[in-house]
Amino acid sequence: MKQPSLPLPLGFLASGVHAGLKGKDKPDMALFCSRLPALTVGMVTTNKVKAAPAKHTEKALKAGFKIQAVVVNTKNANALTGRQGERDVQATVREAARLLSLPPQAVLVHSTGVIGVPLPMPKILLGVRQCVLRLSRAGGLDAANAILTTDTFPKYGFRTLKLGGKKACLTGFAKGSGMIHPNMATMLVYLLTDAGVNRGLLNRALREAVGESFHRITVDGDVSTNDSVILMANGACGNKPIASRGADYRAFAGALKELCLDLAKAVVRDGEGATKFVSITLQGASDEADAYRAAMAVAKSPLVKTALFGADPNWGRVLAAVGYSGAAVDEFKAKVVIGGYRLYDGGREVAWSRDRLKKILSQRDISIVVDLGLGKARTTVYTCDLSDGYIDINGRYTT
Amino acid sequence: MKQPSLPLPLGFLASGVHAGLKGKDKPDMALFCSRLPALTVGMVTTNKVKAAPAKHTEKALKAGFKIQAVVVNTKNANALTGRQGERDVQATVREAARLLSLPPQAVLVHSTGVIGVPLPMPKILLGVRQCVLRLSRAGGLDAANAILTTDTFPKYGFRTLKLGGKKACLTGFAKGSGMIHPNMATMLVYLLTDAGVNRGLLNRALREAVGESFHRITVDGDVSTNDSVILMANGACGNKPIASRGADYRAFAGALKELCLDLAKAVVRDGEGATKFVSITLQGASDEADAYRAAMAVAKSPLVKTALFGADPNWGRVLAAVGYSGAAVDEFKAKVVIGGYRLYDGGREVAWSRDRLKKILSQRDISIVVDLGLGKARTTVYTCDLSDGYIDINGRYTT
Repeated sequence: MKQPSLPLPLGFLASGVHAGLKGKDKPDMALFCSRLPALTVGMVTTNKVKAAPAKHTEKALKAGFKIQAVVVNTKNANALTGRQGERDVQATVREAARLLSLPPQAVLVHSTGVIGVPLPMPKILLGVRQCVLRLSRAGGLDAANAILTTDTFPKYGFRTLKLGGKKACLTGFAKGSGMIHPNMATMLVYLLTDAGVNRGLLNRALREAVGESFHRITVDGDVSTNDSVILMANGACGNKPIASRGADYRAFAGALKELCLDLAKAVVRDGEGATKFVSITLQGASDEADAYRAAMAVAKSPLVKTALFGADPNWGRVLAAVGYSGAAVDEFKAKVVIGGYRLYDGGREVAWSRDRLKKILSQRDISIVVDLGLGKARTTVYTCDLSDGYIDINGRYTT
Repeated sequence: MKQPSLPLPLGFLASGVHAGLKGKDKPDMALFCSRLPALTVGMVTTNKVKAAPAKHTEKALKAGFKIQAVVVNTKNANALTGRQGERDVQATVREAARLLSLPPQAVLVHSTGVIGVPLPMPKILLGVRQCVLRLSRAGGLDAANAILTTDTFPKYGFRTLKLGGKKACLTGFAKGSGMIHPNMATMLVYLLTDAGVNRGLLNRALREAVGESFHRITVDGDVSTNDSVILMANGACGNKPIASRGADYRAFAGALKELCLDLAKAVVRDGEGATKFVSITLQGASDEADAYRAAMAVAKSPLVKTALFGADPNWGRVLAAVGYSGAAVDEFKAKVVIGGYRLYDGGREVAWSRDRLKKILSQRDISIVVDLGLGKARTTVYTCDLSDGYIDINGRYTT
């Protein structure tokens, strides 16, 4: 996914700077900006303890304001910071609006990092100024790097497409490595496009894309206080704004889905401490809901994830997790296949070799397929292994 | 909880032997036996993928058979072993019944260990014979040691009480270290008593005791395929069998509750890789269900548990977990107190010292109190930290 430079859609600028929140000159603040007011839709964490910036974003999205700027800071989540946290959001919004000559309602701010500590406002305000000064068409990669926390690589991508004869562009950014679990939204994700799309269809396309990407990944099952996915469409490519579910909508929604899935997979691949990327396909389920909850139970199970880390041929934990997921399961109909290797088939004896399975589990990419043999529903979700790296990162996160 | 010897209730015998399932002469099979037919009640895992022995136990309990013997093997769970697994249960039952001159329906067998591997029946049958030969009134500690898997110490306890002028005894055994999460039953637990109690009240006392003990602990959130809690009452102490909820019932139920809580706490203290014992009290919740789900979300959160392991003063993760638990929460009313130290108070600034909190988190026993400030419901649950020891144990469990 890495590339030398990252195209931004027409009318968009970006920047990433070191504002002194993190040590060692690490970039820690970013700004995404559209020269034109952009129709903006999004999804915010369902955690009832929402960070002040997440609450602000939720309100702005609900009001339907056209957005032109999103300020992002890392290191500090501005969550559980009381009224002071809300005042700090407002102060950041005001400063960005002033410097960019925008109305305050066109500005969003997002934070990610430690919970329960007040924002260092002097640094933040100075950071906003630096971000504004550095805004450029070539600033995409800087922004991609500046939104990271425990991530080990930046996550971004783009798609180009033709909409009514016009060339449109869609560029996406994600950060997220721990506290990753779907619950109507995950992590911080910015999707920028110069396509014109009406609000209803923009919303629909985002929800469909998130449903098949960010809602199908888990790292640790913890739901963040700050997750937000934002899609900004400024219409600068000049297409006749998409207003029906015809070919143009399908092209746009398809590109968005692909991009979101790429970003979601990158988040899992970079899960905290992850050494393996694991896809779990649950097929033959009675219905969609069963397929999803069974797949997610496997993807979340600490016992499955530690066995994957250790390449321990302990496949029984996969069906044990399906068993407590709530999904209908009959052990005499279920099958388990890992890396193409059949290990369990409805309770009939399967001759499998520990060595061969250990070899499969030692690879960096692992596919697990569970067939419940009960129906036709099917889903695929993505997870990573659980390693001592996760313990190490999260046992000293604030220190 | 350790003591030089362990009294067994009148009429009970026990043994623990090395049957060659584990290496290095480690004890790996146990037998609990009552000379008199014992009224027996119990609870079995709610996992839909139940091990063959768990299914057999469920059926026997439902039929209301009086039980006289429980054979336990470790190292192999006899789960996901198809019809062969069921036949192996029957063969074990038959051999124990034959050697003990009991009807087969008076015998239960339990297994714990790796899932999906057939039992090594020659060793198991030889182990049954050894267990029968070693049965004795002094065999309690041997049995307590022989039911362990990844446990690092045996878990047992006893209570004596007066029932209608007769001295009664209640002795309990538990094993369990990983795959610990409440779901109507947990781990393997054997509760033996010479008290006489009618079936309805025996059942009631067990369900109440489990609800306040084994259902309030979690190690890793994985629900086992083999969990069983068994309570055998043979009436040998000679009391008039308890048939009403009077003083005798209250004495018996109280002793059972205490014993179960002791055993449950010991399971958490010995959680896989655990370095800390953590009690989480959730008070001021709108209702019982909210108190329980919020407390359990904190107890399960990998981010809370790794921070506890690392003594990282990252208390914000506690309320973040409450926030996604589904419980009603208002950040402007909630309070967080760890080790008696107030860290968060309804979003008002609290001056807390990282050093002091780090010191509290470095202790072996940690109490977390969350007050939601919304109502009067309250519960306490128990968990342990998540350390690299857990990863180490579970990354090489079968190897």
